[in-house]
Amino acid sequence: MSQRDDVSSLTLNRLSVYLRCLRQLQQDGETRISSQDLARRFHLSAAQIRKDLAQFGEFGIRGVGYQIDDLRRRLESLLGVDREHRVAIVGAGNLGTALARFPGFNSDSFRVVAVLDNDPQKVGRKIAGHTVCHSRELPRLIPELGVQIGILAVPAAAAQENYDALARAGVKAVLNFAPVQLETCSAVPTKSVDLMIFMEELSYFLR
Amino acid sequence: MSQRDDVSSLTLNRLSVYLRCLRQLQQDGETRISSQDLARRFHLSAAQIRKDLAQFGEFGIRGVGYQIDDLRRRLESLLGVDREHRVAIVGAGNLGTALARFPGFNSDSFRVVAVLDNDPQKVGRKIAGHTVCHSRELPRLIPELGVQIGILAVPAAAAQENYDALARAGVKAVLNFAPVQLETCSAVPTKSVDLMIFMEELSYFLR
Repeated sequence: MSQRDDVSSLTLNRLSVYLRCLRQLQQDGETRISSQDLARRFHLSAAQIRKDLAQFGEFGIRGVGYQIDDLRRRLESLLGVDREHRVAIVGAGNLGTALARFPGFNSDSFRVVAVLDNDPQKVGRKIAGHTVCHSRELPRLIPELGVQIGILAVPAAAAQENYDALARAGVKAVLNFAPVQLETCSAVPTKSVDLMIFMEELSYFLR
Repeated sequence: MSQRDDVSSLTLNRLSVYLRCLRQLQQDGETRISSQDLARRFHLSAAQIRKDLAQFGEFGIRGVGYQIDDLRRRLESLLGVDREHRVAIVGAGNLGTALARFPGFNSDSFRVVAVLDNDPQKVGRKIAGHTVCHSRELPRLIPELGVQIGILAVPAAAAQENYDALARAGVKAVLNFAPVQLETCSAVPTKSVDLMIFMEELSYFLR
């Protein structure tokens, strides 16, 4: 098994959080920080930080801390966000529209290049600068625009067929917002954002 | 520390998944299932299922499996979804609108009872049967409607003030969609849905 497979989803999510903290620190003009200070400032665990970052080799200097710029670049490279990933959003309803307007999807790392829908009333409309294309154009547009990540913002009933179409068209990963268990293809890493799981986690604390 | 605090977010999320599987099995007319069959059918780990469910006492009968209806009820009770939680959505833009229309938020466990916004152009509009109220009504509406869960679907810059307003008005939990680190109040469990973390997890697999 490669190192790639060894890193858990949870660890990756923590690395994303560290990256965000480091960017904030750089904006604030800081150049160096210890794991203790990083932990204190962002309410994280110093031991966890050291453990997470140790997995990827020795970034810190004992007693001196991390060079913020260096660590930020290494995390960006590890997470693959030091390059642009082209994104297509399938579903131009309220959710798809909200996603297309999301600042993080028009950044150096992720860039929405297409919005698709099969509703003739939506096709041709402009959303965040993108003209909505018909879903039947998907097999042509994905390779043509070099789309790597597909986002499913369609109703549950339409999710599987659109997932299959994205996978066939050659996307490398899918983020799914439809409340449905997809039959996924192992070659296309897929992450489902399941709102009910978040709500159920909160309701647990309301018992 | 109470048992409540001992259960991790990850375990709760798995319990939500089991609950979903059990509901599916009941719909399919099943009455009993072993941890092995549950694992096989839904691509889960049998050992993990037994471990997770053991935390809450002995549900299964060795060699016979779980009574699906009984286990479902117990999980619903554990997760607190055997009663209705009233939900208010703050922010009536595309995301707030998508959330207000989400079937899971109009169910027996979660029911949207108010949608608020501070934009005069949105106030008074109907969204999924709810007339959008002005955010200044929040302190009155939350207790009046018995809202327990507040959902933040506002831009990052408006998130903290609306969080504070929800907490002051007496909500018991908050689900935050704004891409910002909130200063939260420990009495109000808060879950942030951070899209960039999901995207960064996917981009890791595209390196």
